[in-house]
Amino acid sequence: MSTIPSESSSAPSSIRIFLDREKGGVTNTVEDLVIVEEPMELQISQGDRLTQTISVTMRTPGQDFELALGYLLSEGVIRNAADVVDVRVCGPPSPDKGYQNVVQVELVSDLAFDLERLQRNFYTTSSCGVCGKTSIEAIDVPLSDAIESKFTISRERLRALPDRLQSWQTEFQRTGGLHAAATVDENGEIHRVREDVGRHNAVDKLIGSYLYEAGDPLRNLGLLLSGRAGFELVQKAAMAYMPFIASIGPPSNLAIELADERNITLVGFLRDTGYNVYSSHGTLV
Amino acid sequence: MSTIPSESSSAPSSIRIFLDREKGGVTNTVEDLVIVEEPMELQISQGDRLTQTISVTMRTPGQDFELALGYLLSEGVIRNAADVVDVRVCGPPSPDKGYQNVVQVELVSDLAFDLERLQRNFYTTSSCGVCGKTSIEAIDVPLSDAIESKFTISRERLRALPDRLQSWQTEFQRTGGLHAAATVDENGEIHRVREDVGRHNAVDKLIGSYLYEAGDPLRNLGLLLSGRAGFELVQKAAMAYMPFIASIGPPSNLAIELADERNITLVGFLRDTGYNVYSSHGTLV
Repeated sequence: MSTIPSESSSAPSSIRIFLDREKGGVTNTVEDLVIVEEPMELQISQGDRLTQTISVTMRTPGQDFELALGYLLSEGVIRNAADVVDVRVCGPPSPDKGYQNVVQVELVSDLAFDLERLQRNFYTTSSCGVCGKTSIEAIDVPLSDAIESKFTISRERLRALPDRLQSWQTEFQRTGGLHAAATVDENGEIHRVREDVGRHNAVDKLIGSYLYEAGDPLRNLGLLLSGRAGFELVQKAAMAYMPFIASIGPPSNLAIELADERNITLVGFLRDTGYNVYSSHGTLV
Repeated sequence: MSTIPSESSSAPSSIRIFLDREKGGVTNTVEDLVIVEEPMELQISQGDRLTQTISVTMRTPGQDFELALGYLLSEGVIRNAADVVDVRVCGPPSPDKGYQNVVQVELVSDLAFDLERLQRNFYTTSSCGVCGKTSIEAIDVPLSDAIESKFTISRERLRALPDRLQSWQTEFQRTGGLHAAATVDENGEIHRVREDVGRHNAVDKLIGSYLYEAGDPLRNLGLLLSGRAGFELVQKAAMAYMPFIASIGPPSNLAIELADERNITLVGFLRDTGYNVYSSHGTLV
């Protein structure tokens, strides 16, 4: 497999429904769009081992293969394209709406990972859980090496990013509650955008979409988030060795701590008029 | 236990940090607040059985016992206060910041529940996962009986709710990205508000806070959400037998389906000028 297979399913990310709209005291039945949220079950297979379900995520259908691969990268199961044999849909579509809600990733047979931790879907591995650990120790997926990058961006180009992201999103996507995650380059150009009802899924789709591209491009791109920068989103960027995160919303304390620990520059409350720098590692010029 | 024990920890939900703020081309170091996000490990104990960790959630500290109880109710483990013997913090505080991040709930010894499903932290129980099931069948926690309520609210009082919710939240809480969940009564009064960095946690805290109150009050209250109404939030309201949900943001397709199936009236895009009704079951008068 030298590229992510195209998904045959033409699952729409929004559907038309009828609803009652009240405005100024008058109610009318109108047709409108609503964002689709469907469960996606992620299975992994490997050599002769039994196929295992490792997660069920509520996601907006579309780019399901990218979502699966990005999730596995974020969780530390795979590190690059060489760890993956195949990715495919599996089983019949959902009987009510025809969505293909099961994705199976076949891993190379000698890949070692902690299946039990994955299936528990939370971070603690010791019998004592989070007791006696610092918060980040308790929940972090460790990186094999430090994030090093020569990525820089000018303060002027940084302030232009919110407008650029908006021009990628339609009014419906913004008001419909789709979260966007985008890659940005040193010239302040948006490279690629992925969207989902779930913030984590948008980042997984984005990261997964780069898995088969040569030269580790994510190491020299920034991550732009339409919402808040929580701990888990910073963790995903760190697992992809991304050196820079800018979010329209605020970060949390733990997001700032992790970014700082991993040499990631973290900007929040990004507007065309200014921004806050929560963690600074030589990226802003 | 006739009430939820008070939590001795005085964990702040926000902390002061120093950051660089750029505004109009000028950078200054300023002191500002940032929302706290810390991992909470939830353990359950029962009679002679080994204490088990069932989840680790990234949450804003505060009302941790309510969060634990609301989560267990939402997941179908407990149904009322009689199922709970005790709730307590457990183990030492986190060594770096002193947060008490482990909560243990002791369940009555004859309470039956599916521990394996809980620990997997996802919904499918059959070996075939979501294959061949409708989307809601695949992920739903079934209710033992239908939601029946005489709760009604006037359209005028409904439109007043966004302003009332705002008056409970400070500017910092809104811009800092805290999600709010509130109960509202038939007079359009806000009963109680809970907040968290996680939307699910805000609803769990709110629902958990009512567990020890006589007369099942949630069956006659509506749920007001500061953000979107996703499937899992509707599911939590359904598990608490709440008849009405109004959200400032939009719902998803699956949220609408589940609300309709459970006789829950679902309103979205709520503003003082109007709103959309996605599922209607005699609540709006």
